[in-house]
Amino acid sequence: MIRVGINGYGTIGKRVADAVRAQPDMTVRGVAKRSPDYVAVGAAEADYPVYAADEDRADGFREIGIDLAGTADDLVAESDVIVDATPSGVGAENRPLYERHDTPAIFQGGEDATVAEVSFNARANFAEAEDADYARVVSCNTTGLSRFLAPLHETYGIDKARVTLVRRGGDPDQTGRGPINDTVPDPVSIPSHHGPDVQTVFPELDIDTIGLKVPTTMMHVHAVNVTLEDDPDGVDDVRDLFRAEDRLLTIPEYAGIDGAGTLKDFAMDAGRPRGDIWENCIWGESITLQGRDLYCMQAIHQEADVVPENVDAIRALTGLLDGPESRSLTNETLGIDL
Amino acid sequence: MIRVGINGYGTIGKRVADAVRAQPDMTVRGVAKRSPDYVAVGAAEADYPVYAADEDRADGFREIGIDLAGTADDLVAESDVIVDATPSGVGAENRPLYERHDTPAIFQGGEDATVAEVSFNARANFAEAEDADYARVVSCNTTGLSRFLAPLHETYGIDKARVTLVRRGGDPDQTGRGPINDTVPDPVSIPSHHGPDVQTVFPELDIDTIGLKVPTTMMHVHAVNVTLEDDPDGVDDVRDLFRAEDRLLTIPEYAGIDGAGTLKDFAMDAGRPRGDIWENCIWGESITLQGRDLYCMQAIHQEADVVPENVDAIRALTGLLDGPESRSLTNETLGIDL
Amino acid sequence: MIRVGINGYGTIGKRVADAVRAQPDMTVRGVAKRSPDYVAVGAAEADYPVYAADEDRADGFREIGIDLAGTADDLVAESDVIVDATPSGVGAENRPLYERHDTPAIFQGGEDATVAEVSFNARANFAEAEDADYARVVSCNTTGLSRFLAPLHETYGIDKARVTLVRRGGDPDQTGRGPINDTVPDPVSIPSHHGPDVQTVFPELDIDTIGLKVPTTMMHVHAVNVTLEDDPDGVDDVRDLFRAEDRLLTIPEYAGIDGAGTLKDFAMDAGRPRGDIWENCIWGESITLQGRDLYCMQAIHQEADVVPENVDAIRALTGLLDGPESRSLTNETLGIDL
Amino acid sequence: MIRVGINGYGTIGKRVADAVRAQPDMTVRGVAKRSPDYVAVGAAEADYPVYAADEDRADGFREIGIDLAGTADDLVAESDVIVDATPSGVGAENRPLYERHDTPAIFQGGEDATVAEVSFNARANFAEAEDADYARVVSCNTTGLSRFLAPLHETYGIDKARVTLVRRGGDPDQTGRGPINDTVPDPVSIPSHHGPDVQTVFPELDIDTIGLKVPTTMMHVHAVNVTLEDDPDGVDDVRDLFRAEDRLLTIPEYAGIDGAGTLKDFAMDAGRPRGDIWENCIWGESITLQGRDLYCMQAIHQEADVVPENVDAIRALTGLLDGPESRSLTNETLGIDL
Ligand SMILES: NC(=O)c1ccc[n+]([C@@H]2O[C@H](COP(=O)([O-])OP(=O)(O)OC[C@H]3O[C@@H](n4cnc5c(N)ncnc54)[C@H](O)[C@@H]3O)[C@@H](O)[C@H]2O)c1
Ligand SMILES: NC(=O)c1ccc[n+]([C@@H]2O[C@H](COP(=O)([O-])OP(=O)(O)OC[C@H]3O[C@@H](n4cnc5c(N)ncnc54)[C@H](O)[C@@H]3O)[C@@H](O)[C@H]2O)c1
Ligand SMILES: NC(=O)c1ccc[n+]([C@@H]2O[C@H](COP(=O)([O-])OP(=O)(O)OC[C@H]3O[C@@H](n4cnc5c(N)ncnc54)[C@H](O)[C@@H]3O)[C@@H](O)[C@H]2O)c1
Ligand SMILES: NC(=O)c1ccc[n+]([C@@H]2O[C@H](COP(=O)([O-])OP(=O)(O)OC[C@H]3O[C@@H](n4cnc5c(N)ncnc54)[C@H](O)[C@@H]3O)[C@@H](O)[C@H]2O)c1
Repeated sequence: MIRVGINGYGTIGKRVADAVRAQPDMTVRGVAKRSPDYVAVGAAEADYPVYAADEDRADGFREIGIDLAGTADDLVAESDVIVDATPSGVGAENRPLYERHDTPAIFQGGEDATVAEVSFNARANFAEAEDADYARVVSCNTTGLSRFLAPLHETYGIDKARVTLVRRGGDPDQTGRGPINDTVPDPVSIPSHHGPDVQTVFPELDIDTIGLKVPTTMMHVHAVNVTLEDDPDGVDDVRDLFRAEDRLLTIPEYAGIDGAGTLKDFAMDAGRPRGDIWENCIWGESITLQGRDLYCMQAIHQEADVVPENVDAIRALTGLLDGPESRSLTNETLGIDL
Repeated sequence: MIRVGINGYGTIGKRVADAVRAQPDMTVRGVAKRSPDYVAVGAAEADYPVYAADEDRADGFREIGIDLAGTADDLVAESDVIVDATPSGVGAENRPLYERHDTPAIFQGGEDATVAEVSFNARANFAEAEDADYARVVSCNTTGLSRFLAPLHETYGIDKARVTLVRRGGDPDQTGRGPINDTVPDPVSIPSHHGPDVQTVFPELDIDTIGLKVPTTMMHVHAVNVTLEDDPDGVDDVRDLFRAEDRLLTIPEYAGIDGAGTLKDFAMDAGRPRGDIWENCIWGESITLQGRDLYCMQAIHQEADVVPENVDAIRALTGLLDGPESRSLTNETLGIDL
Repeated sequence: MIRVGINGYGTIGKRVADAVRAQPDMTVRGVAKRSPDYVAVGAAEADYPVYAADEDRADGFREIGIDLAGTADDLVAESDVIVDATPSGVGAENRPLYERHDTPAIFQGGEDATVAEVSFNARANFAEAEDADYARVVSCNTTGLSRFLAPLHETYGIDKARVTLVRRGGDPDQTGRGPINDTVPDPVSIPSHHGPDVQTVFPELDIDTIGLKVPTTMMHVHAVNVTLEDDPDGVDDVRDLFRAEDRLLTIPEYAGIDGAGTLKDFAMDAGRPRGDIWENCIWGESITLQGRDLYCMQAIHQEADVVPENVDAIRALTGLLDGPESRSLTNETLGIDL
Repeated sequence: MIRVGINGYGTIGKRVADAVRAQPDMTVRGVAKRSPDYVAVGAAEADYPVYAADEDRADGFREIGIDLAGTADDLVAESDVIVDATPSGVGAENRPLYERHDTPAIFQGGEDATVAEVSFNARANFAEAEDADYARVVSCNTTGLSRFLAPLHETYGIDKARVTLVRRGGDPDQTGRGPINDTVPDPVSIPSHHGPDVQTVFPELDIDTIGLKVPTTMMHVHAVNVTLEDDPDGVDDVRDLFRAEDRLLTIPEYAGIDGAGTLKDFAMDAGRPRGDIWENCIWGESITLQGRDLYCMQAIHQEADVVPENVDAIRALTGLLDGPESRSLTNETLGIDL
């Protein structure tokens, strides 16, 4: 049993913790958190050993009835591998701590690619992380794009990809984030950082991305165009290709699913924890071929799609299983590919 | 085992179905639905017998692989009690169907009070529904207010209540509803219909309500003022009173819960199905006394708070248990009062 | 002086009326309206003769102190040309009325292209409307795209255009429209109707469009990709091309304009009536060349960009001036190209 | 001619500048700004002498073609009175500068009441500022409440006022502010700071306020309850009282004005600069009496209502006119009380 420490227990950290717990070959050693708030109470009630990321606030935990298992340093010492899910930029600051303990670690997409030897996506480049000590699971958007592009790349070849990312302004619990009533080019320059980030996974890929931020909290939506190298044998060929992928969900036309609200309602009905949608959600009706130009729209649940990737990254770093085995076990335990 | 038929399987209907299924003394006979969409698939996958509310669309169900168990008429015939969760106004049209089969029925708050003999809230007037054949579970807002006002009414007496209801514009899956960027007096006239609706539960209560609609989807928020008849012995007295109530949750100050986003995140962390919050959520810090004037703010999860009330209403109509017994069993089975 | 009747005095109609009034060669004969509301009062206070579109509601106008000048039929009879700015679909129903009076008419983009002989954009195909009796000013999005594509088409040739339209859910005064918190593919199928609509202006153009609706009210934003036939001589060449266009505004980087809010604030500071932005607003920093692939983002003020086009369309239909003369006079009188 | 310097030329500052310019007895000496952005360009194009608030950024102004008239220090030296419209808290830091030059100054509502001798509202306490060197125009919300309460206080006496403030999350140009999809108690504690702020104007008034923040940008909405001391002679009595006030606008029922979107559309139709609504907007239909309890809803344009108050405050501090004269001149020059 691989002991996994989760450093940073917020939106991503708590989901990764639950996903790790669901695996037969790993266990959650504990979670490190800064603030003694409702999320900390949730960790304790979920029976995760809680470690204080910030020792100065240890008393606060005690006051709300949480027995601390130690400090973040202790957690790193007691874990075989760390998943760092602290806010953007903090991960890089934490890396020396992991090095000191000689503990392999997985970082998140908010970090620069330089934080780790490899930028990781389970579908696209699992094997590259097998010899690494540090890997970075690419961001929610890049994960969504990597999964989508991988089968097209392998099957038809990609001449060029052009993607407009209509991004949610903030997560549902981030009341301080806007915009309230605006569509904000973000960044204004083109390509947005998402294109180069995809290239950390597919170094040769020709991809241009445009990023915009809108007043929504539930999911990103990508408007995708891919000019393929080879002509698919009609649009059904592409649909079949997507259907064969485990983390691509095609939304059927009859379903009446028109956006993130209905998608999450669907996930709730299916009993998904937190209504999480780990898969890319591609509107079937939107899949269109114009010659070699493929178009479609997909929704990406920013809080969830990287979660199975973190689990797989743990296996890649620790050598527990190879890529296909890991993905399949992760899918099965989480209930992906309903 | 009471056989419960759910007529109308949408936002409310599917939640009531799951809640009924969790009870030891009742079972879901089936659910009737109009559209063969993702919600219908969800019903089938949850193993609820599906009945066609609209026979003309029966083929559509078959096409997506759902075997129909019959028509809505069949469902009524085969059930001991019906929960009607069809859209506002449709319930009243359905009443003759229930009468024809001599089947007691529970309607929702979207119906006029005249649809049933009694307007029902489990905390406030359970007993009144014990002899009834038809009851209406009051709306999400009225349910929230009734629970809140009942203990104050009993303990201190209420001189006058004044409530501003800052209502969500639509449910998360209702993409057609606005406003997008406006605060809309709705209705413009005062009192809004919520005041008189509360009076269907507390006939003598002096209450004035003001209703507004804002661009949110997750929860209603009530800004409440109650002028009490007797002076509480300090604000802690009131807090204790609220704490003793099973369906009032007081949000502690340390929690860092600032709105509906964090509240639902909290509910998700606690493993609540669909992130449902069946309780009123009162911000502890907001509870304030100015002489006999009590103030506070509470958030109401519109999709969820009426769900346990429907379960209790079934017991009231069918005589299974008395009020305190029913509420306590509902709470226990659902996991209310964490 | 050409007498212009405005049939339908809402978001578009009132702006067109004010723009017509600002011209030296035309006058507003009157405006026809259905509802005796604040907009009607505004028309009367602006000294426009008010005609009743719906005779049954004539009394309502009198009750709020508006003397009616007649019916919509009278207005058509007394006008040399009609601008029909009624809601989508109503224009087509009105066409027989205009034919009966032998009055040329201009329709809006909410109508099908078949409502008129020509779909009109002042920059792209003014001359085509010179012999027509009926013209349709294309929609706000199509107007924005036509203006943008015309100079590229003429200068470099267009191999293919791919546009993602991030559309505002409703106008600021449309409180009934959503979504509140969702990004909605609309339509789900690709291309959206915008592509074919652009082809009513540029019949040979290869263009694919993707449409999405988001919770904003102020402006549409287009993420544009154009694969050009000829290589521009660097990105400055393209910037110069845009700068030479009268209804394309390039937003300079220093300005600190990050979205529709600041754009409208800018327009307000400039004294624009209603904060209207008649020009396409292209973020200068976003203009990017990758080989023959040009990218950029532009914001389109849906309520305003078609207004100068309507004025020009009047001149095209009535033969008052040719295209360049008309555009230049419209620009000068309105204050376009600040 | 009183020379007025505007220190801080943002949302409030630029509106005050334009309002001052419209007065016969005062002139804008200049405006001081920090950033060389589109707003600075607007100031220059409006022919306001521009002073650099931050000398380090003076070059930036020159680069975009703005000739600086000097520094903020120069502006203070050359002005008879300063309107400080810098961001919250900066005003207090600026006070020593004004003292050094012995220049009277007006601060805005973002400052603590202690920044000045008097907290000012033109309707309620003009005279109190007549002997002061420093006055603070109270915030947009407090201004709206003061105007509303003053006539009730004088005519009937106020036993107690209870107000729920449904506040806009940010101004239209503030894309960084949220919430996106939440109703946020802000502050959670009751009374919110608005109550005590009203008491800086009406020291004896018994008022409790509850504050909430919602995802809108256009206007605040107040749900107001006032328990009067004397019984009005029916609701028409109250309506007449409001109608007699110059800065209270009653929205007639026929108008079809349902929120801030239509209100601003109305203001645009009336030719108001920037669509500004300087008056409180009270929904006529909402004015309700229940015994001595008066209820209603009013919308407050946060960017505009304090503007005439600043003009009046200048006259109070400089002794140009008395309260009624000043208010009437301000109204006439701006076009208030349409
Ligand atoms: N939220 C998303 O949608 C999303 C999606 C994909 C990737 N990511 C990436 O995941 C990472 C985490 O983001 P998140 O949204 O979960 O953030 P979050 O703010 O929700 O959670 C961060 C957690 O880290 C804790 N923390 C802060 N400083 C710490 C420290 N010094 N040591 C230990 N813990 C600390 C915080 O208390 C909190 O529990 C970021 O790199 C982010 O870019 C986020
Ligand atoms: N959504 C809320 O927040 C909420 C809260 C409290 C009470 N309510 C009340 O609950 C009731 C149901 O509301 P909802 O939000 O669940 O609606 P909904 O639209 O989500 O679901 C209604 C369901 O009824 C079905 N239906 C429609 N016509 C039907 C018919 N003739 N026969 C049978 N089924 C039919 C629809 O297919 C759908 O499944 C209404 O009275 C509403 O006012 C809703
Ligand atoms: N609003 C936009 O952003 C926008 C942009 C470009 C084009 N358009 C198009 O312009 C047209 C008008 O749209 P709008 O947004 O101004 O609509 P609107 O609803 O704001 O105004 C329509 C007006 O027509 C009146 N009306 C309704 N029925 C009528 C009838 N039978 N006869 C005469 N008048 C009638 C209404 O009272 C109202 O005054 C539509 O074709 C629309 O698609 C709208
Ligand atoms: N925006 C509103 O809705 C509103 C309403 C009523 C009152 N107020 C109050 O008015 C004041 C100004 O608010 P605003 O919304 O206009 O702010 P803003 O941010 O729009 O404008 C502030 C201006 O001050 C300038 N500035 C910043 N630091 C400065 C300095 N040190 N010296 C000189 N100028 C400086 C900025 O460049 C900007 O031009 C605040 O006290 C605020 O609370 C604002």
